[in-house]
Amino acid sequence: MNGRPIAVTPATRPDMHAALCRSVAEGGATLVDMADAEALIWADPRASLLPEVMALNPEVEWVQLPFAGIEDFMEYLDGDRWWTNAKGVYAPAVAETVLAQILTLCKNTHGYARATAWQHPVGRLLRGSRITVLGGGGITRHLLPLLAPFGCDVTVIRRTDQPIDGANRTITTSRLMEVLPRTDVLVLALALTPETSGIIGAPELAALPDHALLVNVARGGHVVTDDLVAALRNGSIGAAALDVTDPEPLPQGHPLWVEPNCLITPHIGNTPEMGLKLLEPFVMENVRRFCAGEDLLALVDATLGY
Amino acid sequence: MNGRPIAVTPATRPDMHAALCRSVAEGGATLVDMADAEALIWADPRASLLPEVMALNPEVEWVQLPFAGIEDFMEYLDGDRWWTNAKGVYAPAVAETVLAQILTLCKNTHGYARATAWQHPVGRLLRGSRITVLGGGGITRHLLPLLAPFGCDVTVIRRTDQPIDGANRTITTSRLMEVLPRTDVLVLALALTPETSGIIGAPELAALPDHALLVNVARGGHVVTDDLVAALRNGSIGAAALDVTDPEPLPQGHPLWVEPNCLITPHIGNTPEMGLKLLEPFVMENVRRFCAGEDLLALVDATLGY
Repeated sequence: MNGRPIAVTPATRPDMHAALCRSVAEGGATLVDMADAEALIWADPRASLLPEVMALNPEVEWVQLPFAGIEDFMEYLDGDRWWTNAKGVYAPAVAETVLAQILTLCKNTHGYARATAWQHPVGRLLRGSRITVLGGGGITRHLLPLLAPFGCDVTVIRRTDQPIDGANRTITTSRLMEVLPRTDVLVLALALTPETSGIIGAPELAALPDHALLVNVARGGHVVTDDLVAALRNGSIGAAALDVTDPEPLPQGHPLWVEPNCLITPHIGNTPEMGLKLLEPFVMENVRRFCAGEDLLALVDATLGY
Repeated sequence: MNGRPIAVTPATRPDMHAALCRSVAEGGATLVDMADAEALIWADPRASLLPEVMALNPEVEWVQLPFAGIEDFMEYLDGDRWWTNAKGVYAPAVAETVLAQILTLCKNTHGYARATAWQHPVGRLLRGSRITVLGGGGITRHLLPLLAPFGCDVTVIRRTDQPIDGANRTITTSRLMEVLPRTDVLVLALALTPETSGIIGAPELAALPDHALLVNVARGGHVVTDDLVAALRNGSIGAAALDVTDPEPLPQGHPLWVEPNCLITPHIGNTPEMGLKLLEPFVMENVRRFCAGEDLLALVDATLGY
């Protein structure tokens, strides 16, 4: 083996550890202990263990984090080395979850799942709906092709108005309030930053039509939870499906668990069974690039946080 | 008005009656009582009222029925006039329901809907699955474009092996048992005839892989219900979503209501709010054709029953 020395640690999640060790080997690097490593592949969902591992070898040139949402890791990021995350890796899986949440709400399968007797048939067509997607990243890029056959009118809202394939229009975040009243389905698929924290609160929920559906697969902190509870209770929106919550996990006894127009899924956008299948080849490619001295994928800007 | 005289009856369902009266007017015919009519637009889900209305005027040349599944009407069909149904009219709506059922099962949104606490994340990718669709009619033709972006391997099984756009292969019903072991998702979207009644029973369910998903949006009678209950209980298939049941409505206390791997939706493929939007323009077109002496759409073969 003449690849560069890379550590995969901790070994707290055996499946993840094994998958990432394969990535290192198949990417052409040499698997070593942290003390001898030039790079670290982090193999745990938790950030809390990171400082003591980094202390073993502060010289590592590159740290690969295994998730796209890395808020918990932010305080440890520095400018002394490259940090990469798994931005975009899980996007195909999360895009499927978005469409699953939308169709669940449209066809009320969450409501019927709770029934133990034949009910009145309800359900609306997704075809031709006006969909607004916040965020123009990987999830959105994988979602738009799934929506294409439904002939929806899709507006993407992002920091820039750079067009995105498959969207009818792309506009900047400053025009959010203008678009909400013409939105049948609002999808949150953006990064969590100080600017986007709480981006959907009471005023935004009030601006939506009363039949509007809200789907959040990004981060719980995008939505002001108490305002959403109020909007669902007073019928100012139609229904919500949340794959992420604030707080997360959503505590037992929280009113959203029993809200008839709400579906909570426990962050299934990236389940272990789907995620490792997507993560392993991605990390392998970054290992190959590291060994070859090429640019790494999914570099994190330690200042912006994504 | 110089259009031909057409009756819309009964008026038991005000919304449906109003929509179909608009179809007659906008199609260029003249709305009349049954006694004076040359054609009848039937405006009730029930067949039981039909004989006494027909007795008022046995000379009508054409009867338009408002549904695609017309088993209850079969005993009244005759060769003395044209009978048309609503074959294909609701197909875009039902195709959406199929994808909703598939994604609900893939992402376990039916299971999470029943939860009142944060659960372990589960879920599988639809992308790349092997999908077998029984039936090559309108639902299938509208379903395949919705599945296209998922890159699935799709086999359509129908009476003839005439190819269908969007299917990887089309084969005849005689080869069903051969395909089932290679099926991740089995969709029933065929007509109910004596040949297809009970087409999915114990042997077929046993032939499916134990992770397979079953979706039925056709007729409850296609599936041997007790065999399905047994297959779900012993884990010989993964999960089922039924928009139609046998018996239908599914009685309270039936084991399928509480089966964790089963979702029952109450025949929502064609809900009133979706259905009339699709039915009104379709009947208008048939009225126009009747007045113009053109071939009618969705003629029923009184012998075959579809």
